[in-house]
Amino acid sequence: MVLEALVRYGAFSGSDDQVLGDLTLFVALLCGCIVIGHLLEESQWINLSITALIIGLCTGGIILLTTKGKSSRLLEFDEQLFFIYVIPPIIFNAGFQVKKKHFFRNLGTIVLFGVLGTLISFGIISFGAVELLGKLDTDFLELRDYLGMTKLKRTADVVIRRKGIQMIQDSIGAIFSATDSVCTLQVLNQDETPLLYSLVFGEGVVNDATSVVLFNAIQKFDLSNINSRVALSFTGNFLYLFAASTVLGVLVGLLSAYIIKKMYNGRNSTNCDVALMILMAYLSYVMAELFDLSGILTVFLCGIVMSHYTWHNVTDDSKVTTRHAFATMSFIAETFIFLYVGMDALDIEKWRFVSHSPGKSVAVSSVVLALVLVGRACFVIPLSMLSNFWTSKHDKISFKHMVTIWWAGLMRGAVSMALAYNQFMKSGHSQVMGNALMITSTIAIVLFSTMVFGWLTKPLIRYLIPPSQHFNSMSSSEFSFALPLLSGIEDDVPRIRSLTVLLKRPAQAIMYFWSTFDDAFMRRVFGGRDSRLDTTVLSKEGSDCDLQFES
Amino acid sequence: MVLEALVRYGAFSGSDDQVLGDLTLFVALLCGCIVIGHLLEESQWINLSITALIIGLCTGGIILLTTKGKSSRLLEFDEQLFFIYVIPPIIFNAGFQVKKKHFFRNLGTIVLFGVLGTLISFGIISFGAVELLGKLDTDFLELRDYLGMTKLKRTADVVIRRKGIQMIQDSIGAIFSATDSVCTLQVLNQDETPLLYSLVFGEGVVNDATSVVLFNAIQKFDLSNINSRVALSFTGNFLYLFAASTVLGVLVGLLSAYIIKKMYNGRNSTNCDVALMILMAYLSYVMAELFDLSGILTVFLCGIVMSHYTWHNVTDDSKVTTRHAFATMSFIAETFIFLYVGMDALDIEKWRFVSHSPGKSVAVSSVVLALVLVGRACFVIPLSMLSNFWTSKHDKISFKHMVTIWWAGLMRGAVSMALAYNQFMKSGHSQVMGNALMITSTIAIVLFSTMVFGWLTKPLIRYLIPPSQHFNSMSSSEFSFALPLLSGIEDDVPRIRSLTVLLKRPAQAIMYFWSTFDDAFMRRVFGGRDSRLDTTVLSKEGSDCDLQFES
Repeated sequence: MVLEALVRYGAFSGSDDQVLGDLTLFVALLCGCIVIGHLLEESQWINLSITALIIGLCTGGIILLTTKGKSSRLLEFDEQLFFIYVIPPIIFNAGFQVKKKHFFRNLGTIVLFGVLGTLISFGIISFGAVELLGKLDTDFLELRDYLGMTKLKRTADVVIRRKGIQMIQDSIGAIFSATDSVCTLQVLNQDETPLLYSLVFGEGVVNDATSVVLFNAIQKFDLSNINSRVALSFTGNFLYLFAASTVLGVLVGLLSAYIIKKMYNGRNSTNCDVALMILMAYLSYVMAELFDLSGILTVFLCGIVMSHYTWHNVTDDSKVTTRHAFATMSFIAETFIFLYVGMDALDIEKWRFVSHSPGKSVAVSSVVLALVLVGRACFVIPLSMLSNFWTSKHDKISFKHMVTIWWAGLMRGAVSMALAYNQFMKSGHSQVMGNALMITSTIAIVLFSTMVFGWLTKPLIRYLIPPSQHFNSMSSSEFSFALPLLSGIEDDVPRIRSLTVLLKRPAQAIMYFWSTFDDAFMRRVFGGRDSRLDTTVLSKEGSDCDLQFES
Repeated sequence: MVLEALVRYGAFSGSDDQVLGDLTLFVALLCGCIVIGHLLEESQWINLSITALIIGLCTGGIILLTTKGKSSRLLEFDEQLFFIYVIPPIIFNAGFQVKKKHFFRNLGTIVLFGVLGTLISFGIISFGAVELLGKLDTDFLELRDYLGMTKLKRTADVVIRRKGIQMIQDSIGAIFSATDSVCTLQVLNQDETPLLYSLVFGEGVVNDATSVVLFNAIQKFDLSNINSRVALSFTGNFLYLFAASTVLGVLVGLLSAYIIKKMYNGRNSTNCDVALMILMAYLSYVMAELFDLSGILTVFLCGIVMSHYTWHNVTDDSKVTTRHAFATMSFIAETFIFLYVGMDALDIEKWRFVSHSPGKSVAVSSVVLALVLVGRACFVIPLSMLSNFWTSKHDKISFKHMVTIWWAGLMRGAVSMALAYNQFMKSGHSQVMGNALMITSTIAIVLFSTMVFGWLTKPLIRYLIPPSQHFNSMSSSEFSFALPLLSGIEDDVPRIRSLTVLLKRPAQAIMYFWSTFDDAFMRRVFGGRDSRLDTTVLSKEGSDCDLQFES
C-alpha cells in the first residue's frame, strides 16, 4: 500500500509502474530460470548460465518486438551496483565453500597463473590489438586517437596523446586478459575436478589483484617503455596490494570468529550469528574497495577464514543455515548476471551503429577472440611446465590437463561486459562508431565464449579426463568443512624430523609448522574444530549436503 | 579491483570514495548494533530498536560535529527503495513465522481492529488536526493552503483547493493512524504474549489494506461530505482490495508449493528450494504493488501459505535454512531501519527551519501525539468489548489486555517517517517552514514513541500481565511449523455432529470443514504434513530453534 500511496502522491514519476512491472517480470524470469535450469540439470550440454542467457535473449527479443525496437532491457543496470552488490556474494561463497586442501596445496601454481599468466596474456592481447586491429582498418586507428583525445580533454600534447592511445590498447588487454571467476564457477565442478577447479578459479581470484596493479600501472607509467625503475615500482605495488588485501580479509574473518566466540558463548542466537557473518564479510569487501585494494581477493580470503574458524563457533542450525544461505545468495546473483547479460545483448542502440558495417564488427570480434585464445595458451602451457618442476608427483599437470585449464579459463562473462561498458560507453560516447564497435564485439565475445565454450566444456572435460581418471578425485560426499585447513599437506608430511627435510621441501615444511601453530594457538583463540578429533562425525554430517550448483 | 578500475577510469564522480566510505561505516554500525543489541538482550528495558536508534543518534551527532553541521546522514535513502527492498522481508518473515493458530482464531477481532479501528482513528486524528492545529496557529492554516496550492499546481479553482487542504488533513490522519507493524515486532514477543502479538501485529497488516483504500478515497471522494454512494463505493473498494490481495498471496504461495513438490520430487536441491521461496515471495509483493493492491497483506499471506505447504516439501536442510535465513533477513532489515531513522533524525536541514520557533514545533508534536493516543483508545476499548460478545470464554479480552493492546500499538516508526518525508518534502518544498515543522514533528513523535513507549512496553506488559498469567501462553519450545494450520480451533470442536452445532458456532464450523478439506485435498496436492501424524517428532525438532528476535 505504502508504495502505492507514494506513487499516488506524486513522489515518483509516472514511470514508477513501469519500474514495478519490470521488476515483477525480472523476478518471474529468475524463477523461470531456476526451475528450467533445475529440470535441465541432468543434461551434460547445458548449464545454468547458458539457460539464463538463452532465456534472457528470448525475453530481450520479445521486448524488442513489443516495444517496436525501442528497448530490449527490463532494468537499466548501473555497473557500480553490479560490483557493489552482485559480485561480493558470489566470491564470498566461493571462498566459504572452496576445498581448502586443494587451494593451498596448489597455491604456488595459482599465484604463478594469476600474476605472471595475466601479465603475459595482457601483453599479447594489447600488442596484438594494436598490430592486427591497426592493419584491419585505419578508421580504427583514428578512433583510437579520438578516444585518446576525449579522455585527455583534447590536450594537444603529443606525449599525453600517445599515452591516451596506449591506455585504450591496454584497456582492451586488461578487459580480455582477465579470467571471469563467475563463469568458471558455472562450468567447473569442484567435486568432479577439484584440482582443475582450484587452479582455474584460484587464478581468477589472484588475477583480480593483478588487474588492479595493471590499471594503476597503465595510468602511472608508460608501459611501452619499461625500465628497471618501472618494473621495480610495479613489483612493489603488486606485493603491497596482494599483502594488504590478504591481511584485511584474514583480519576481518578472524575478528568475526573472535566476536562470535567471545560474545555469544553458550547462548548463541542463530539470527545474530548469520547476520554478523554476512555483514562482516561484506564489510571486508567494501573496506578493501575503499582502500583501493582488491575487494575480490579480500572477500575470498574472508570466506576461507570464516569457514575455517567462525563457522565452528556457531550453533548447529547456524552451520546449516550459513552453508546453504550463502550458496543460495551466490546462486541467485549468478543467475541474475547471466539473465541480465542475455537481455542486454539485444539492446538495439548498440547494434544500430555497427549495422552498416557488419563485416568490421565480425572481424574485430574474431581478432579479439583469437587473441584471447592465443594469449591464454601462451601462458598456460609454459607456466604449467614450469610448475611441474617443483610440484610433487601426483600434482603434476599433464598435457590433457593443460588443455582443460586453457579451455576452462576462456570464458568471458558479465565482469568483462561491465568493464567494457564502462570503458567504451561513458558520457554519451556510445554513439561514436568505434565505441559501439568495441561494445558489440565484447557482447559477441561474451555470448560466443559463454555459450559455445561453456557448452563444450563439460563434454571436453569428460573426454579428456574420464570420470574414473579425475585426478585427485574426492568422493562427492567429502565436504570441505569437514577437513582441517591444509590437512592434505599434513598427510603428505607426517613429521618433519630433520633440517634436511625442511630444506628439501620448504613448502611442505611451512605447511606443517602452520598446521601445528593452527592447532596449538589459532583454534584455541578463534575457535574451530580440533583436527585430531571427530573427523568421522563431521564428514558424516557433511555427506548429505548439496552445496555446489551442479552445472 | 574492478570497482576501483571503474573509479580510475572516471565512470564515477570523485564522490565514489565517499559512497564507499559511507557504506563501510554503515555496515560497521550495523555489526555494532547487532553485537551491542545481543549483549543487552537480557535487559528488560532496552530492545534492539532502541539500541539501533541510540547508536544512530550518536553517530549522527558525531558526523554533525565532524562535518561542522553540514550533514548527519551516511546514506541518502530513497523512500522507494525502502518500500521495495526493506519492508518485504520483514513482513514476509512475520507471515512465515506467525503462530497460525492464534492468528486465525482471532481473525474476526483482527479484521475489526484493522478496518473499523483504522477508520475511527483516521477520523479522529484528521478531525483533531484541523481543529486543534488550526487554533494553535493561523500560519499553519496558511501553510495548508499553500500546500494545497502547490500540490494542485496553483489552480485557482476553489473546490480543488479545498480538496487539497482536505488531503493534507487526511494525510496527517493516514500517516498517524497506521500501526507500525515493524515496531510491533520489536516490542511484543510472540512466545510470551501470543494473543496480544497476533492481535496487534495482525491489526497492523490488515490496516495496511485499509490505508490503500483510504488513500484512494482521499483522492477520489470528498470525505467531508460522505453520502451513501461514497460509503458504498468505499466498502466495495475495500472488499475488492482485501480479497484480491489475499487471493494473490495465497495463489503465489500455493504455486511455489506445487512447483517445488512436482519439480523437485526426490532430488531436491537446497539452493533451488530456498531461492525459489525467496523469489516467489518477493514476486507476490511486487505483483501486488504493481496491481495497486496491498503488497504487505499479500506477502504476509504468501508467508503463511509457504510455511503451511511449501515448507513441508523441501529437504531437511532447506527447512532449517529457510527458517533462519528469512528470520536473519528480517532481522538485518529491522536493524537497518532503526539505525537509519536514528541518523536521519539529526539531519540539520530539517531542524534549521524550525529553530526560531521551537515552541510551535513542540506544540504540534504534542498535539499529534495526543491525537494518536486518543484515537487509538477510542477504537481499542469499544471494539474489544464488541469482540468479547462473540469470542469464546478463554479468548475474551480483559480490561488489562485492552490497555496493553492500546499501548503496544502506539509506536510510530520508520513507515510513518517514510510517508511523512514523502508527503512533506518533495521537490524542494522541505524548506518551507510548515513542511519542516511537520517533518520535525514526525521525527519527534517517532523518536519519542519508539524510545519512551517502546522502553515502557516490556515493564508495562510484565506489570499488567505477569508471566504466569499470560493468557493462551504457550511454552516457548512450541513452534508454529509444528502445528497444523488452525489446529487450535480443531481441538475446540472435536467433531461437528449436527446442524445445531454448525448454526450455533458458525466460525468454528467453518474452521472444522476447512481443516477436513485441507487434510483431504490441499495437503495431498500442495504438500504439507498430515496433521494426524508425527506431531511429536516435529515439535521436538522445532524445540531448539531461536527464531524470534528476543526483544
